[in-house]
Amino acid sequence: MRDVFHDELDGIGAGVAEMIRLVAAAMEGGTAALLDADLSRAERVIDADARVDALRVDLEDRAFQMIARQQPVASDLRLLVTTLHLVSDLERMGDLALHVAKAARRRHPDLVLPQEVAPYFAEMGRVALDLAQDARRVILDRDIELAFTMESDDDAMDDLHRHLFTVMMNKEWPHGVAPAVDVTLLGRFYERFADHAVAVARRVVFMVTGKMPDPPLA
Amino acid sequence: MRDVFHDELDGIGAGVAEMIRLVAAAMEGGTAALLDADLSRAERVIDADARVDALRVDLEDRAFQMIARQQPVASDLRLLVTTLHLVSDLERMGDLALHVAKAARRRHPDLVLPQEVAPYFAEMGRVALDLAQDARRVILDRDIELAFTMESDDDAMDDLHRHLFTVMMNKEWPHGVAPAVDVTLLGRFYERFADHAVAVARRVVFMVTGKMPDPPLA
Repeated sequence: MRDVFHDELDGIGAGVAEMIRLVAAAMEGGTAALLDADLSRAERVIDADARVDALRVDLEDRAFQMIARQQPVASDLRLLVTTLHLVSDLERMGDLALHVAKAARRRHPDLVLPQEVAPYFAEMGRVALDLAQDARRVILDRDIELAFTMESDDDAMDDLHRHLFTVMMNKEWPHGVAPAVDVTLLGRFYERFADHAVAVARRVVFMVTGKMPDPPLA
Repeated sequence: MRDVFHDELDGIGAGVAEMIRLVAAAMEGGTAALLDADLSRAERVIDADARVDALRVDLEDRAFQMIARQQPVASDLRLLVTTLHLVSDLERMGDLALHVAKAARRRHPDLVLPQEVAPYFAEMGRVALDLAQDARRVILDRDIELAFTMESDDDAMDDLHRHLFTVMMNKEWPHGVAPAVDVTLLGRFYERFADHAVAVARRVVFMVTGKMPDPPLA
């Protein structure tokens, strides 16, 4: 009985790892589609989101059923409840990557981004991917130290996000309101993606240590 | 033993109802602060958010402890797991109301909103408050019918949100980029607040019926 239980626990863990791999790939693909006005890449990201949503429903159900049927001990219960939280954050990260891809598709064959802000998004995409990959390793390896280092990447994202506003507010901004609206929303999507990656890591820290990391991981 | 259990379950339910009352009040206050450039009202909303965050931590912990210690039957377990999801959405609704209040404070004594978009925000604030109050009644009364009617308010929010963009994209928009950026972000905050209110109602429907309402509640 205990073996079946731990096999299923491992299966759920593998599903969570697969979800975060998918949302990292989605943000990587969404960023590429955005920077290159690459329609087919955008379409692939958009199509792939259904798999993320399905995994969330499946994992949430399996975690619930295990809690209901197996009456797990406290540490296993904490793992299962953490899973419920993680899959919610991960689904949202998938949605945010989806929004990026949809923006690329909506403006195709034009580029969404004025040339002078494109490098900011290339960098935000890189930081977002780093954070998602770090969050994956935090989950797989229970790597609490790595979770704490994610703070500086999240700060980097916030800085990039603030700089974007500085560029748009500059009186020299020649592109008018419509691109500014796109840039504002897209910047927000990357910033929120990073926030959710950090939230995932925080949840794992809480699961492992029993304490929510308040000041260090903001 | 069962009486203590149900007393604690009722206590958790009362905490969730209090959380949603607080986030509804926060969005009402945030909207008023935004429309009237009312600094003291903005400050009150900002100060009140700590209570929402504390309730989330407290309720999450109490729900977890009940699952761990009482091994509840399936229906009580579903209620407790639903609570974990609800308090996460409710905390986020509080954050979004907080963002609105902070925008009002940041631009004080100026108004954040150009005059021609203020009525849209008055209406979005009204719809957001309706949705939060409906979600509260859905929780308290397990009112599935009411949950389904929330769809039309959410559609109204999406329409208002789209109209905002039309106003900003108009070539006659005389306010330049900075107010457009504020309006874009604020519009997003209201739209997300509505999404979370609908998500709360969906969770209650799922808890009561065992089925996630997919097509009707979008």
